[in-house]
Amino acid sequence: MNELASFQAWTQENRVRIKETYFQFLRFKSISSDPSMKGEMQRCCAWVVDLLKKIGFDARSIETSGAPLVYAENLHAGKKAPTVLIYGHYDVQPVDPIELWESDPFEPEQRGQEIYARGANDDKGQILFAILAFQMMKELKRQPPVNIKFCIEGEEESGSSGLSDSLPKLKTLLKADELMVVDCGLSDKATPAITLGGRGIMTLEVTLSGSKIDLHSGLLGGIAYNPNRALVELLAKLWDEEGRVAIPHFYDAVVEMKEGERKQLQFHHDRSYFIREFGIEAFSGEKGRSMMDAAWLRPTIEINGLSGGYSGPGFKTVIPKEAKAKLSCRLVPDQDPAQIEKLVADFLTRHVKEGMKVDVKFLGSGSSFRGRLDSPLAKTLAQAYTEIMKKPCEAILSGGSIPIIAELSRFSQAQVVGMGYGLPEDQIHAPNEHYGLDRLEKGIWTVARAVELLG
Amino acid sequence: MNELASFQAWTQENRVRIKETYFQFLRFKSISSDPSMKGEMQRCCAWVVDLLKKIGFDARSIETSGAPLVYAENLHAGKKAPTVLIYGHYDVQPVDPIELWESDPFEPEQRGQEIYARGANDDKGQILFAILAFQMMKELKRQPPVNIKFCIEGEEESGSSGLSDSLPKLKTLLKADELMVVDCGLSDKATPAITLGGRGIMTLEVTLSGSKIDLHSGLLGGIAYNPNRALVELLAKLWDEEGRVAIPHFYDAVVEMKEGERKQLQFHHDRSYFIREFGIEAFSGEKGRSMMDAAWLRPTIEINGLSGGYSGPGFKTVIPKEAKAKLSCRLVPDQDPAQIEKLVADFLTRHVKEGMKVDVKFLGSGSSFRGRLDSPLAKTLAQAYTEIMKKPCEAILSGGSIPIIAELSRFSQAQVVGMGYGLPEDQIHAPNEHYGLDRLEKGIWTVARAVELLG
Repeated sequence: MNELASFQAWTQENRVRIKETYFQFLRFKSISSDPSMKGEMQRCCAWVVDLLKKIGFDARSIETSGAPLVYAENLHAGKKAPTVLIYGHYDVQPVDPIELWESDPFEPEQRGQEIYARGANDDKGQILFAILAFQMMKELKRQPPVNIKFCIEGEEESGSSGLSDSLPKLKTLLKADELMVVDCGLSDKATPAITLGGRGIMTLEVTLSGSKIDLHSGLLGGIAYNPNRALVELLAKLWDEEGRVAIPHFYDAVVEMKEGERKQLQFHHDRSYFIREFGIEAFSGEKGRSMMDAAWLRPTIEINGLSGGYSGPGFKTVIPKEAKAKLSCRLVPDQDPAQIEKLVADFLTRHVKEGMKVDVKFLGSGSSFRGRLDSPLAKTLAQAYTEIMKKPCEAILSGGSIPIIAELSRFSQAQVVGMGYGLPEDQIHAPNEHYGLDRLEKGIWTVARAVELLG
Repeated sequence: MNELASFQAWTQENRVRIKETYFQFLRFKSISSDPSMKGEMQRCCAWVVDLLKKIGFDARSIETSGAPLVYAENLHAGKKAPTVLIYGHYDVQPVDPIELWESDPFEPEQRGQEIYARGANDDKGQILFAILAFQMMKELKRQPPVNIKFCIEGEEESGSSGLSDSLPKLKTLLKADELMVVDCGLSDKATPAITLGGRGIMTLEVTLSGSKIDLHSGLLGGIAYNPNRALVELLAKLWDEEGRVAIPHFYDAVVEMKEGERKQLQFHHDRSYFIREFGIEAFSGEKGRSMMDAAWLRPTIEINGLSGGYSGPGFKTVIPKEAKAKLSCRLVPDQDPAQIEKLVADFLTRHVKEGMKVDVKFLGSGSSFRGRLDSPLAKTLAQAYTEIMKKPCEAILSGGSIPIIAELSRFSQAQVVGMGYGLPEDQIHAPNEHYGLDRLEKGIWTVARAVELLG
């Protein structure tokens, strides 16, 4: 364990510097879904480019139809060595409800080992450890035995459309043998795991309009059909009695996982875990399906946003002119997001109250991705994890989505594997997101060790 | 028509002054449901007190458990003369969605005869004409032949709890023979009408909680039951297939109106009117019931606000920890708001998804009120309207609610009748509320004439 000892020594010596770099990264308000944050996005992108340049990468930002992309390469291992493409993102989720944050989401705060900030885990903390792994190797004068390419996008949290549009022309640049997705996690803090896949996603917004102006619920109540009512009646039809999505043909393309593959996966959690960690008391899922199925192997539809009428303090006796819902589907192999979009939009249009106008706006999608347990990088990552965490490395899936990965894997022609030290309780996408400095350090070691083993 | 001619001459001579007074009143941001507007509410109340003092009333503000009340009296007609209690309110509805206003809601703008501002009709424009009627009579040296009391509250738009709490101790002060509710309207601009009743109201907010924090819809989607889903499924159960409210015993206390009473009422509007005026294309109502029933004679339940998760620009893949709805019922004789509140709360609690926490917060209520076509003030108002509008005066009901009227009528021991020049197309409670200066003038004449005829 000579290598690991030297890695540990390096991170210990550089703790102040690592934390400073991490905090700088976290302070950028890089919310990709908020158009007013465009300047912050650009500054954050430039900062990442700069960091990669400083550690010897040939780095630059690439303009896309959306947010700019960070691209960096270190191809010193030569043409015969394999190439690893490392994926991550520098954008973050919005912060609302802001009032539930205990500290400023963009001014990182340390409590014990944990750093609280938006993006602390997702994905700034994680992609940062992958970058710092190469800073460490450089400073320890350990030239990576493989070629490294970084692709760090700025729109993972809002549909990845810029990167998606650019992929055809970036095909050669991004060509690789292995695609390491540094945006994943573990089932629990003590158990190492590589991630062999994630669900796809399809998002849309549906708006129902009932009148040309807001109406008075006394004067017109009983006469006008309330769009809020039409919306709840419509959305309630999305599930059947068994908890399945009731949209015809929704499951048609779903491939049931074979028993052999199923056995490679470890799902640890039960109801008591979800009750304890998140206070969940009402459970979802299809009748007769396991919790692993519900979390990883089955598609879903969720109402992510619901709005119509007055929701401020007090009361307003209004029948609003319109009501809206944001919906997302999580998809599994081989569901096609475009096909699912059509099925959902058709269902909404067909089942709405007569006379109510329906507008469906598509907001982005990405297919499910899957890697293999026996791919070279999967194997070296598993070995690195096992050495570092001193426990056999498991294989898991993620119920979450990294919309671009299926496409990125196809265009780069690389086999995909996900890694990271995220934990389900890190509150990503929620107030008080956090991530541990200890995990950041382990991430540095794991990436460096896996890359060296691959050489 | 000597009187009317002198009234018309007075309003014509005083047009500039009337408009200035009206605009001053409209500029107060007296939104009673918004706690941050408390100062505006107090200034507005003081302004009304001042106006009444200037025209010879013994006026003052009365503190309540909520917003202060304007009370004013002119009892010069003596103990043998009847007393008319005039009710109105100086508070207004919130203004959102603010982006749909074509001009500042608190900076009145004139377009033709119409004044655009929040409260232009409801109820500043209307209660103002009642006040100005007495300014006119004073300046024309026509002492009212009846005693006049004004009760102008500041919480009609948010449940009237302050006035309601104060009624027992104001019983003697407010004692009257006739209660004139100056917060009503006409079916159309050409047809005079007195209002013989309004529906009651009961409002509440229901919150469903599914977890202690917001969840990631990928990581927990399929596991956690989404409160948005539980909410739409719950609210969709509020109506049956026939369009009736599906809450057991909801209709138990409803008294069907007798055919004789029905024939006293005139309902003018049909679907084409609602399509033309409001762009309504989807209609509500119970199967087999007429449009008059739906608008005036039947109770309803409406979803006035729906909120849960992320509704901003872009998308957020969240399963929110909670989802909320604001609900209101419109009530008819003899439904008891407290009983209906209990039925609704019980229904929501009983039908929610297992494990989901339900919190029901009651937000205010008021019973339905009804007056009689043959009460003295109803008769003189009808005569005044007929003289002024040169068309027989009709009797109508309102589908809207003035929550305090039933109680106010009981405590003051007065017979109630509603009047006003509001029109369904005035967009009260909506952006671009408006009211006509011509109607304001007619209101002045109508109140003055009805009061003189009563003497």
